Amino acid sequence: MSINSFGHLFRVTTWGESHGPAIGATVDGCPPGVTIDEGLIQHWLDRRKPGQNKYTTQRREADEVRILSGVFEGKTTGTPVQLMIENTDQRSKDYGDIKDKFRPGHADITYWQKYGIRDYRGGGRSSARETASRVAAGGLAREAIRAIAPNVQITGYMVQMGPHKIDRARFDWAQITANPFWAPDAQAATDWAAYLDKLRKSGNSVGAVIELVARGVPAGIGAPVYGKLDTDLAAACMSINAVKAVEIGAGMDAATLTGEANADEISMGPDGPEYSSNHAGGILGGISTGQDIVVRFAVKPTSSILKPRQTITKSGQATEIITKGRHDPCVGIRAVPVGEAMMACVILDHLLLHRGQVGGQVGENQGLIG
Amino acid sequence: MSINSFGHLFRVTTWGESHGPAIGATVDGCPPGVTIDEGLIQHWLDRRKPGQNKYTTQRREADEVRILSGVFEGKTTGTPVQLMIENTDQRSKDYGDIKDKFRPGHADITYWQKYGIRDYRGGGRSSARETASRVAAGGLAREAIRAIAPNVQITGYMVQMGPHKIDRARFDWAQITANPFWAPDAQAATDWAAYLDKLRKSGNSVGAVIELVARGVPAGIGAPVYGKLDTDLAAACMSINAVKAVEIGAGMDAATLTGEANADEISMGPDGPEYSSNHAGGILGGISTGQDIVVRFAVKPTSSILKPRQTITKSGQATEIITKGRHDPCVGIRAVPVGEAMMACVILDHLLLHRGQVGGQVGENQGLIG
Amino acid sequence: MSINSFGHLFRVTTWGESHGPAIGATVDGCPPGVTIDEGLIQHWLDRRKPGQNKYTTQRREADEVRILSGVFEGKTTGTPVQLMIENTDQRSKDYGDIKDKFRPGHADITYWQKYGIRDYRGGGRSSARETASRVAAGGLAREAIRAIAPNVQITGYMVQMGPHKIDRARFDWAQITANPFWAPDAQAATDWAAYLDKLRKSGNSVGAVIELVARGVPAGIGAPVYGKLDTDLAAACMSINAVKAVEIGAGMDAATLTGEANADEISMGPDGPEYSSNHAGGILGGISTGQDIVVRFAVKPTSSILKPRQTITKSGQATEIITKGRHDPCVGIRAVPVGEAMMACVILDHLLLHRGQVGGQVGENQGLIG
Amino acid sequence: MSINSFGHLFRVTTWGESHGPAIGATVDGCPPGVTIDEGLIQHWLDRRKPGQNKYTTQRREADEVRILSGVFEGKTTGTPVQLMIENTDQRSKDYGDIKDKFRPGHADITYWQKYGIRDYRGGGRSSARETASRVAAGGLAREAIRAIAPNVQITGYMVQMGPHKIDRARFDWAQITANPFWAPDAQAATDWAAYLDKLRKSGNSVGAVIELVARGVPAGIGAPVYGKLDTDLAAACMSINAVKAVEIGAGMDAATLTGEANADEISMGPDGPEYSSNHAGGILGGISTGQDIVVRFAVKPTSSILKPRQTITKSGQATEIITKGRHDPCVGIRAVPVGEAMMACVILDHLLLHRGQVGGQVGENQGLIG
Repeated sequence: MSINSFGHLFRVTTWGESHGPAIGATVDGCPPGVTIDEGLIQHWLDRRKPGQNKYTTQRREADEVRILSGVFEGKTTGTPVQLMIENTDQRSKDYGDIKDKFRPGHADITYWQKYGIRDYRGGGRSSARETASRVAAGGLAREAIRAIAPNVQITGYMVQMGPHKIDRARFDWAQITANPFWAPDAQAATDWAAYLDKLRKSGNSVGAVIELVARGVPAGIGAPVYGKLDTDLAAACMSINAVKAVEIGAGMDAATLTGEANADEISMGPDGPEYSSNHAGGILGGISTGQDIVVRFAVKPTSSILKPRQTITKSGQATEIITKGRHDPCVGIRAVPVGEAMMACVILDHLLLHRGQVGGQVGENQGLIG
Repeated sequence: MSINSFGHLFRVTTWGESHGPAIGATVDGCPPGVTIDEGLIQHWLDRRKPGQNKYTTQRREADEVRILSGVFEGKTTGTPVQLMIENTDQRSKDYGDIKDKFRPGHADITYWQKYGIRDYRGGGRSSARETASRVAAGGLAREAIRAIAPNVQITGYMVQMGPHKIDRARFDWAQITANPFWAPDAQAATDWAAYLDKLRKSGNSVGAVIELVARGVPAGIGAPVYGKLDTDLAAACMSINAVKAVEIGAGMDAATLTGEANADEISMGPDGPEYSSNHAGGILGGISTGQDIVVRFAVKPTSSILKPRQTITKSGQATEIITKGRHDPCVGIRAVPVGEAMMACVILDHLLLHRGQVGGQVGENQGLIG
Repeated sequence: MSINSFGHLFRVTTWGESHGPAIGATVDGCPPGVTIDEGLIQHWLDRRKPGQNKYTTQRREADEVRILSGVFEGKTTGTPVQLMIENTDQRSKDYGDIKDKFRPGHADITYWQKYGIRDYRGGGRSSARETASRVAAGGLAREAIRAIAPNVQITGYMVQMGPHKIDRARFDWAQITANPFWAPDAQAATDWAAYLDKLRKSGNSVGAVIELVARGVPAGIGAPVYGKLDTDLAAACMSINAVKAVEIGAGMDAATLTGEANADEISMGPDGPEYSSNHAGGILGGISTGQDIVVRFAVKPTSSILKPRQTITKSGQATEIITKGRHDPCVGIRAVPVGEAMMACVILDHLLLHRGQVGGQVGENQGLIG
Repeated sequence: MSINSFGHLFRVTTWGESHGPAIGATVDGCPPGVTIDEGLIQHWLDRRKPGQNKYTTQRREADEVRILSGVFEGKTTGTPVQLMIENTDQRSKDYGDIKDKFRPGHADITYWQKYGIRDYRGGGRSSARETASRVAAGGLAREAIRAIAPNVQITGYMVQMGPHKIDRARFDWAQITANPFWAPDAQAATDWAAYLDKLRKSGNSVGAVIELVARGVPAGIGAPVYGKLDTDLAAACMSINAVKAVEIGAGMDAATLTGEANADEISMGPDGPEYSSNHAGGILGGISTGQDIVVRFAVKPTSSILKPRQTITKSGQATEIITKGRHDPCVGIRAVPVGEAMMACVILDHLLLHRGQVGGQVGENQGLIG
């Protein structure tokens, strides 16, 4: 019932604060025999790492992961895997000015009201730095998925920055890693660069929408009624810092559709059922259909900005706040690898849960039974 | 780790199928000494009950709840409360025509692919009938909340049917129970009536957006990082049948805002911090701020419609399907009391979790500490 | 985290009081496709049923189980199975005399101190009646085990009543069901009959030791470090009413052995490793070895006796108590089918957990790997 | 549902292998504001530390704990506390001789059969080294208990080594820390020293019985039916390496008693109910009575011995084994601080769980209600 954990069988507990000695993820329930080493995990951490371009925080963390347990001679042993990342660039002094002030839109004030503790050094546990632990766990999850369901591919990308959306007609998978915004639309990336530069220089920030797609997930994973695949994906995404909304498939737009329009009609293909459309986002009744699983989430703008805002101090006095620090003008950019990692963990968890309850090969009923 | 359960301390497990002998909720962890009887729960069930007007399914269930355990002499004892609702109007024969066909947009096909079982009588476990159990549990949760945090008020209403939104300028709390749509806008209710009548007669259905508001929740409940209040609310709502998206506060629109615009500025009021706006939806860092907690979710249109759709049979043959049965033209209507119930359960759970970990009176730090 | 639940994947929540309308078990996570009906479960309930001979309580409960959900056309569907047993013989008036008094050795007083609630009608939730729900769940677990690991046989029997032990030299499996004490030693059964008659007539009661053996469990189930098979068996047995000790294999006697004597030496047999002895009770490091799994537990004497004892009332006044009611002179007798049921649930749970984490056929490494 | 975790609200996950870089405990759910530092935890680790006298393994671990998260300015913050202990004395080469052999009575063989992984370096995850993490977590639990229920005192001691028991007439609390065996009987300690010396020199080992007592625990903690205080204590103790039996109060002897003899008669004292005896071990119906909570557990002899034993290799060949390494001749000695730590974690967990569900001050109904 751990409040800092998620997952049923593949269970991840993250720990650590932005300005303590280290952060990490304790991963329990990983299948044995998965080939893993620090390099395979580092690959994903490097995608999230700050300071790589002018659009992300200039904090320079090495974000080097160490595997402290659960791996022997290059393979998981089935026992807990401890993934630790030491904090190396902790400029707590950046926070001296705001030590006793609450940032509007930030968790400073609620942590104080709940726990009576103010870890003013960069947000402590509520810092987006916690998400590095998720990315590390996700890297392990990806390798475990590869061993069980090798056709699964999980990809995240940004589809909207502030009010500016991508043009789906220009969608290009290859573009995603070719620009600093994980945009699948080269033109959008160019436009966003100009837009964000201006915002950044003015000391402001902006929100974004991220889309995650899992291709090749077999039909049949997920579990009614409170362990639904979409329920767990929604929780996984909503738990990411600054996320304010989660959509599956048609998402909010599903409200506007008629039943006739929304129905993804079914036909029989060579490898199992095929669908005329994917309003469902690859999930019906909480269980995967074999189509692409499509999730979107909205990230609010960073609350730590240079624009002065009205607030109060710990003792309730009115004051004004400007947060200097080194902050992301669009924290949504770095949320892309985080979202991918969460999706990987959830999908692995449900692959394991399925074979636990139902047994057999994952996806063996994909082509329907009998 | 039960997949049909939710909640940390106030833990609800629902059970039952639409066409079995009964459905119900097993509720563990309820505080002792809560005044409760069947009438108090029935009040909420009656709001969800089908067949009350022409806009909901004509299935006529009495939906009478029986308390089988955990209550003695009108008070909860602290032991599990079993809430059972017998199914009385099971016209399974309605389903004879579709026994071997899969409804597009329905969980028939995924249950079959996962479990190899086809409970063709109305969807079985995936039927919206399961939500009656949630409403019963929510009725108990409301009474327990009343004993702990009497100022909490939880209200749901519909803000959009198909493409038609309410006008927030006409928002009127009193209207919510004055029309069959739980609309807080009388004009919208009138418009929706005409719109839905037409859809219903054409054998079609439509989606909706529901908003839930909890007023009077003390600051400080919720728990980082994977037991966040918004995470648990998102999971609770996404687990409801047909829900495809969940928003907190500004929701998807948060993506379009700048940090400057999104910041809910803070001032000190007589009873604790006050905010210039509520983009956060009453939650920062997963912990309540003391503002209204605002959640919205989108419900897709009912998939069981009279419009013919292409599909396949259990053995993979192409066919056409028309679902006769007795279905809701806008299942979002009955999702309103369900959403309220889920919110009540989540808030009670976090009230208990908070006093478990932190102790003291709930909300004692609302006015800030020291 | 439900406090009235146990199990990881096969998760059982029991509910109900001795004198409420019904008791039952909500079983989540059962594999789909298991052949089950009420008769298969009733078989096991009938073994526990009171009033079958003069050595058990004369309360006459039909103990008829109804399956309310999770089964369709004679097979489990993979959704929650609700097993309900109505209470039919509730003579609450038996308890009028002790309404305000606490029985020494009974949970009356601690429930009162914890919850401020006194359900004086037969112990309420703390009554041994709750164990009928476990037996029902165990009946389902046995059928699910049969589908996955058909060689598993689970048998319980009494090895000691008061100070009188069986003679292991006379051990006879066939005797177990041939006497009212589940004694594997016919002579012991005869002796115990005389001994217990005398105790019963004097209004006294006595304790017992029960042994449970699971034969045919494949090597490799169980999970370090807090989900060990022996840990879960110990918890399952200790949770049974009146149990005060649990042993695995050599149990308390393991303390007296040297390492040399305790070592179960290993040789290679035709179907996998064989052992020269079984001090380990079939479990090493929390994981099954393929040997018989052997658990013993001690049951204290029934606290409800006719012998007068000193006690206090709810308001703290000194008084004397005699409990009339209809009580078991040796509640250990009826603990035999309860222990078997708990063992069945735990073993099924670990079979599922193993295939969830590790995959493959259960027991495929029994003959060692490679 | 993590298999390497225990606890409901105070939730401990241990990780790490005997010969990896580090081991540790991830502790979630600790109350905020608890005064803690490394020294307070080190105090307890030093009691368990090997190599302190000739009766424990000569492995020389510094066992220095580092707090990596969850503590700020000397107080817990309410977020996860990561306690890490680096492994410094890893002489894996000691294990070269047994790399491919299974030690009788050791988990080598079952880990191999389950996971297909052989971490031959000292047992890997199944090593008693894992228990250092428990002691660290227990040190934190003790400080949290001190803040909530300051009268609680938790003490463990050895009551039996091999066949040699202490004489309860000579019981002296002060003796416990005055000899290397944690014996409350000075004469027993002297006798055991001679006995163990002889065993050790002959390359043999022996079992032991440990008793744990918690004094000052308020009445009313614990929760029916599967979250009973005794159930959780039994699981906590049985999960410790080499434990084969757990007793509460009268334990196995409860089987031999009549109801008349077993009844702990109740009278009213100045601070609440008092009892004429404590056969219950301070727990009735899974809930504390306010008496001393008494738990005993039996530890089997170390399986790694110099005496040659018959066994097989990984490939199933018959062979003989002698385990050189540096092993405890009576691993029960070091189980004393481990047992205390587990008891501290369980009691804290139930203090939190009680105030979560029931609210109010812990123990406020100790003097009975009304």
